[in-house]
Amino acid sequence: MGCWIGVDVGGSKVLAGVVDETGAVVRIAHGSTPGRLVAAQAVEDAVVEAVTTVAGQDEVSAIGVAAAGFVDREGARVVFAPHLPWRGEDVRARLQERFAAPVLLDNDATCAAHAEAAYGAGRGAASMLLVTLGTGIGGGLVLDGRVWRGHHGMAGEFGHMQVVPDGAACECGRRGCWEQYSSGNALVRGARSQLGSQPTVLAELCGGDPARLTGPMVTEAAASGDLVARAAFSSVGRWLGVGLANLVAAFDPALVVVGGGVSAAGERLLEPARDALASSLVGAGHREVPALVPARLGSAAGLVGAAALAGAGSR
Amino acid sequence: MGCWIGVDVGGSKVLAGVVDETGAVVRIAHGSTPGRLVAAQAVEDAVVEAVTTVAGQDEVSAIGVAAAGFVDREGARVVFAPHLPWRGEDVRARLQERFAAPVLLDNDATCAAHAEAAYGAGRGAASMLLVTLGTGIGGGLVLDGRVWRGHHGMAGEFGHMQVVPDGAACECGRRGCWEQYSSGNALVRGARSQLGSQPTVLAELCGGDPARLTGPMVTEAAASGDLVARAAFSSVGRWLGVGLANLVAAFDPALVVVGGGVSAAGERLLEPARDALASSLVGAGHREVPALVPARLGSAAGLVGAAALAGAGSR
Repeated sequence: MGCWIGVDVGGSKVLAGVVDETGAVVRIAHGSTPGRLVAAQAVEDAVVEAVTTVAGQDEVSAIGVAAAGFVDREGARVVFAPHLPWRGEDVRARLQERFAAPVLLDNDATCAAHAEAAYGAGRGAASMLLVTLGTGIGGGLVLDGRVWRGHHGMAGEFGHMQVVPDGAACECGRRGCWEQYSSGNALVRGARSQLGSQPTVLAELCGGDPARLTGPMVTEAAASGDLVARAAFSSVGRWLGVGLANLVAAFDPALVVVGGGVSAAGERLLEPARDALASSLVGAGHREVPALVPARLGSAAGLVGAAALAGAGSR
Repeated sequence: MGCWIGVDVGGSKVLAGVVDETGAVVRIAHGSTPGRLVAAQAVEDAVVEAVTTVAGQDEVSAIGVAAAGFVDREGARVVFAPHLPWRGEDVRARLQERFAAPVLLDNDATCAAHAEAAYGAGRGAASMLLVTLGTGIGGGLVLDGRVWRGHHGMAGEFGHMQVVPDGAACECGRRGCWEQYSSGNALVRGARSQLGSQPTVLAELCGGDPARLTGPMVTEAAASGDLVARAAFSSVGRWLGVGLANLVAAFDPALVVVGGGVSAAGERLLEPARDALASSLVGAGHREVPALVPARLGSAAGLVGAAALAGAGSR
């Protein structure tokens, strides 16, 4: 039996890994994606290259591809992907042509949710809500051990739930989407807007140029006591809890898992989120509020889930 | 084999019905509940009386009770019910003591969702979101033919998802809950606030006293062309669509069913809701927007679902 390979295809990078049946990543290979303005084939070439590199001389028995975009119910097409050139292409078939091993295609957040439920923070939980804070908000819902993909394969688009009527403009074309208030972008924007003339750790890290500020800089500055960075985390955390309260009111999951790059800040993000969840959730005094815990699989969650789903031979 | 009886226990009335295995209501009996300030036993007496009345001389093989409150995962206790005196009582056991037939207890909106999915507007749909607009907003989510009750039995509390930060005060103690903008109460409040000095159908219906205005009056006035009443429906319908867009982004159901008293207005409510759903849903140009249809079982949905679940011998 050959190995399982998972590939996470994001807007700027491709991450491929060999994954064993316990969900552990045995080897990993990075590549870059050429962006959304190139031909679809350039992205597919990047996937093939990363898989070939990471596989080395090993035989491959299953390849799972986690794509940052809407994937149809059948796992065949990427219907739409804001940061990739695929627009309705039958990506699974196109990649299948280039590999001998069976290829599975799924949404990246769905793959991450499967991985966290099977091998990570959600292991043993009867139901789980995963929310990932990266550039935007992604996530998935695991019910009775299975990711709920939705009727058209488009469930889990939590980031575009409207939380502020006529609120901040979103890349999706609407206003007031949750991810405008709680995400990596929201964190950077919040910190940037408060960068004043006083010298702060944050100002130092970005060389005094607010345009160069990144999420990891805000995380680092907050850790070393920078008040502007800490305020940005408080706001992102509070909004995380407010949005989670809506999702918990609707789904009532056993557990809430928070992942994505922003979650590297740990309790600095989760503590204000827990407070806001407890105070915003309906019936909070009369019910159990689900625990809110950090994801465990980090940035490999998507590829681990894709590999595991491909290895199991089913979506 | 005896008959199945379903009982819907609301804040002001008890509705009991004999239901056959096709979901049809054979006979019905009404009773009143004495409110939340009396002893729990008074409500239980009302249930027993309504069941006894509707059963007549028939043998009873199963009794399903749909309660307007949080019911625990086991279907044993009513954890909390804003309009009833039950506060953690083991309602199922207390009612079971008074009947020979097995008694099943569940949340009223959960029962209604089961009924609409099995016998009503959701029949044949692979997944369904039911949203009911009555005094507030209730509802349920049916996935692969089963109502998703949540880990603690508290899923489907859609009405208390926050849609406006620091918005209108809600009976739940928080602000900006969806049901403050889209419900029977929201409809009446909207119409009332616009009742001016000019004579309108609406003013006539309530005898010139805004305090006497009811939801059915707004529905009647809108049907006869009253502009204030129509504007109130436009607003409630638009907010219905905005909130539904959030739920559809998260769940991606095959179908959305709208029930509850306010839905008696039909297209006057559903048309603005469909427009708002289509314009508020993320990726609307790249995905199928689920159909939004009226519920079919009316006010009997709760008791029909309770009877059917009891008759099937399982929650």
